[in-house]
Amino acid sequence: FLGDWQRRSAARSLPYCVGRLDGAGALTNLRRVTGEADGDFENMWFADSDIYKTLEAAAWQLGATPDNAELRTFVDTTAALLAKAQAEDGYLNSYRMLKEPDRRWEALHWSHELYCAGHLIQAAVAAARSGVGAEVVTVARRLADLVVERFSTVDAVDGHPEIETALVELYRVTGHRPYLDQAKRFVDLRGRGLLDGERFGSAYLQDHEPVRDTDSVTGHVVRQLYLLAGVVDVAVETHDETLLAAARRLWDDAFGAKTYVTGAQGSRHRDEAFGDPYELPPDRAYGETCAAIASFHWNWRMLLATGEVRYADEMERALYNVIAGSTALDGEHFFYSNTLHLRSGHDGSHEDAPSGRLPWYSCACCPPNLARLLASLSGYLLTTDHSGLQVHLYAAGDVRTTVDGHDVHVAVRTDYPWDGRVVLTVTTDAAVTLSLRVPRWATEVRLDGDVVEARDWYVQVQRDWSCGATVTLDLPMAPRIIAPHPRIDAVRGCVAVARGPLVYAVEQADLPAGVTLEDVRIDPGAPIAAGRLPDIPVTLTVAGAVETAESDELYPAAARTHTEPLELTAIPYFLWGNRTPGPMRVWIPVTTG
Amino acid sequence: FLGDWQRRSAARSLPYCVGRLDGAGALTNLRRVTGEADGDFENMWFADSDIYKTLEAAAWQLGATPDNAELRTFVDTTAALLAKAQAEDGYLNSYRMLKEPDRRWEALHWSHELYCAGHLIQAAVAAARSGVGAEVVTVARRLADLVVERFSTVDAVDGHPEIETALVELYRVTGHRPYLDQAKRFVDLRGRGLLDGERFGSAYLQDHEPVRDTDSVTGHVVRQLYLLAGVVDVAVETHDETLLAAARRLWDDAFGAKTYVTGAQGSRHRDEAFGDPYELPPDRAYGETCAAIASFHWNWRMLLATGEVRYADEMERALYNVIAGSTALDGEHFFYSNTLHLRSGHDGSHEDAPSGRLPWYSCACCPPNLARLLASLSGYLLTTDHSGLQVHLYAAGDVRTTVDGHDVHVAVRTDYPWDGRVVLTVTTDAAVTLSLRVPRWATEVRLDGDVVEARDWYVQVQRDWSCGATVTLDLPMAPRIIAPHPRIDAVRGCVAVARGPLVYAVEQADLPAGVTLEDVRIDPGAPIAAGRLPDIPVTLTVAGAVETAESDELYPAAARTHTEPLELTAIPYFLWGNRTPGPMRVWIPVTTG
Repeated sequence: FLGDWQRRSAARSLPYCVGRLDGAGALTNLRRVTGEADGDFENMWFADSDIYKTLEAAAWQLGATPDNAELRTFVDTTAALLAKAQAEDGYLNSYRMLKEPDRRWEALHWSHELYCAGHLIQAAVAAARSGVGAEVVTVARRLADLVVERFSTVDAVDGHPEIETALVELYRVTGHRPYLDQAKRFVDLRGRGLLDGERFGSAYLQDHEPVRDTDSVTGHVVRQLYLLAGVVDVAVETHDETLLAAARRLWDDAFGAKTYVTGAQGSRHRDEAFGDPYELPPDRAYGETCAAIASFHWNWRMLLATGEVRYADEMERALYNVIAGSTALDGEHFFYSNTLHLRSGHDGSHEDAPSGRLPWYSCACCPPNLARLLASLSGYLLTTDHSGLQVHLYAAGDVRTTVDGHDVHVAVRTDYPWDGRVVLTVTTDAAVTLSLRVPRWATEVRLDGDVVEARDWYVQVQRDWSCGATVTLDLPMAPRIIAPHPRIDAVRGCVAVARGPLVYAVEQADLPAGVTLEDVRIDPGAPIAAGRLPDIPVTLTVAGAVETAESDELYPAAARTHTEPLELTAIPYFLWGNRTPGPMRVWIPVTTG
Repeated sequence: FLGDWQRRSAARSLPYCVGRLDGAGALTNLRRVTGEADGDFENMWFADSDIYKTLEAAAWQLGATPDNAELRTFVDTTAALLAKAQAEDGYLNSYRMLKEPDRRWEALHWSHELYCAGHLIQAAVAAARSGVGAEVVTVARRLADLVVERFSTVDAVDGHPEIETALVELYRVTGHRPYLDQAKRFVDLRGRGLLDGERFGSAYLQDHEPVRDTDSVTGHVVRQLYLLAGVVDVAVETHDETLLAAARRLWDDAFGAKTYVTGAQGSRHRDEAFGDPYELPPDRAYGETCAAIASFHWNWRMLLATGEVRYADEMERALYNVIAGSTALDGEHFFYSNTLHLRSGHDGSHEDAPSGRLPWYSCACCPPNLARLLASLSGYLLTTDHSGLQVHLYAAGDVRTTVDGHDVHVAVRTDYPWDGRVVLTVTTDAAVTLSLRVPRWATEVRLDGDVVEARDWYVQVQRDWSCGATVTLDLPMAPRIIAPHPRIDAVRGCVAVARGPLVYAVEQADLPAGVTLEDVRIDPGAPIAAGRLPDIPVTLTVAGAVETAESDELYPAAARTHTEPLELTAIPYFLWGNRTPGPMRVWIPVTTG
């Protein structure tokens, strides 16, 4: 599943993004800086970051499939263009260089200069790790050195975090300590009111309170989560327990009261922001694709820092639902905001909340972000430490790695998430402990046919692997009902249907003609049967009803309804919007009869 | 009640607004135009409209209390300042005149030039009707004549409607037909894509579809409703049934699927906009104060055009709930957005959704709008036609008017809405039919002690009034439960409590210590008792419960709760936020036990 998705992204979405970069003028802006093109700056003022994210995706992809000539050409020509556009002192930002060359590093609350620099550095990290595009690394280091030179003595932070995690990653690749020190400075300086809060206030920019003092995730979700990735990176590299504790508190707040059942985050369109605790409206879910990717990245860092399974659980939830759903099956249409309920009569005339995936967005941050995640996905499946190997996400494939100096080969065979069986064959002469994640949703798990009690939610397996040994994990794939916490007012009286890691949704395409989605009800006690439809390997069917109001009155003394039985079919949420466009909802009201 | 409120507004809010005009630089901008002040333009680019709304309020107020010397001075000096600032050809807009004198009438999608002109004209209409401030009328007519001169030949509309209804009103006062013709032109030209849709799209500006073709209210609520006031005005004056039919359709959409139980409208903060049908989240209700005032104005026009009681019902709903609630008891703190649920843990750090009423706003459109409504409120209570007198809103007071040339005196004595008894004494030698509105919520109505069946929801009374005759109307004031239409997902499983026209709310101040508002439940079948608290004449008490989740898990397999009984006290919604600040909600989940 993940492999297919990755290949689709590589074959369709990544070349599509590369093509769009030119179409949207992002690369032309750089050519304007070098004098190779005329005209005024085009696109968003932070459009450089789209280039960098695509470059990062290409670098990861070339690491996996090095003989992709088109991608290599893209990386080489883009790197050359960047090198040519870069100022003598290392500065690089096409918007400022073209529009306001005298205002470098000014108005950091909106300029995104360090944000763009961060994405360039991330591209360089990918290039370094994949062994391609050495010139990208040179350009990025020159800019990073300039950033360190300037900001090691000036108290400032960027309105849009990203530079923090990027500098730590660059430190990891290069061992150059000033990068880490500067990342720590940016984290330490945040929350001291250095930024102009402007239109949405300083909580929007996470600049209202120092990270170590805060208990709540606030404001623009992507900003908050990118910052937290950097926070964990700095905490780990500097052994800062206070900082890690702050990240844990913010995680509890985010995942305890501000996350949708699909893993989406961001309850408000106005400022692309977290809402109050338990404010999780499905129809106005913002759930930006980039936010889900940021959540995946943050959880990955929390997992590495703590080894706790909950973080892997949230990676899985986001990956298989909101992230998977953000791209159409054709690989060339995307959601920017990911709703959990497209209402009947929805006005989808604006790209803020369209009625279906769109080919592109005026702010095109999400598609290249998807491309870089998918191109690097293999890196998130498992980890090793000195005594073993931990499998976090289940995907078919072969991994060769080392544990404590010994070669290890792991072959994974599975049709997960459609099927719950995962067969792992491990071959190594080391005494490796194989740890297999048991998702929180898995109530009964079998290992080689025996029910196991999972310890810390990772089943640990020790075998003689010397001639290869096969372990079979069976995760329960019985459809199940999910209820919301009673404080989530927006979905009171509703349940969702799930199977394995997949949350399901009811789509208009599966309703009888004339039935309005908002009148559909589910019987939460009825048995749920599995089926299939074209392009949908597992559908779920359950007894429900159509409850129609007897009066049009908006606020009657009592709401009387007329009830007709209905057999309800649900499809995986991530597949919605790939057939006839129409209303969809994840949370289904329960029958009242 | 209404009289007290009006007096409080006149004594506190109106002088407060007058004082703020100088503090916020609005008057200074005009002085900059005349050369009497230095410095750059201050405040919003449409700040002139705040002056005009305050001027309108002052004019209405002087009509009622002519010996208010301070107000008269304000009107006279402001009128003189406007006359001095006005360009030779009649143009007047301090932003353009100071900042971009060469860009007159350009970029009408955002410039608000005609919007500001409309509010000046409305102030002039009030001045003319109240017989004060003749100079305001002169200034406004010069500007109106310029508008007609320019826009009778150029196809254009303003991004923010207001000029349409203003020009019809000016036509009514002056009899000058070109004003009406121009208003009709503006209505006819709307929806033809003449405006740059820019950030929020053309539906935001109601420019996506001609008025006569559309079925849905869309976009920015105040824009939509101001436009509709003008639409009805034009329809009535030009006898345009198609246009009136469009207004009816849009009314059905607005009040059938897009209005809160408080009368508030606007489900989205992002673009201050209507949502999709039945998208009515209480915690993210925008419900702008100006939108409620606009709704009141639109319904008034629909009532005059049709005589149908439903429009008066909506005037009452908005007036006693959202509009009344927008101002603090001190008359000097205001809500701009009017939520129906302030959540526990709410971040009220931004004026977009504060935790309580604020003394002023960076966009200060609402307080002076309230002042002009309150100053003119007496004009909305009753109407006359050739055969009778129709009472729409019940308030204590004395009215002298004429019906068919005969003097009529009506004395109304009531403590409505706290008490349902309304005693009317009518004295006239004409054969007047007295029509008394029976609100939709009134299930059993008595006239002089006898239960009456209301015809068309106006009870009609014919008496010999020659020596004065007294009629006693009793409206039922038993507390009642309101249920939401089943398609309003956001309040499923909840009810609201009401009494008479007042919607009630539960406020943290009335909960035992340690109880979280979101855990409170109501037993919708339990009897509701009336009581009182300081400054709250009628409270309502009902049996309820505290249901606490047994697990912190956000998405459990089933949500188990621990239940404790609770006696729940509700207060009128409009009075919330006048005691210890804290969470509040209108819709209360029902007990599940």
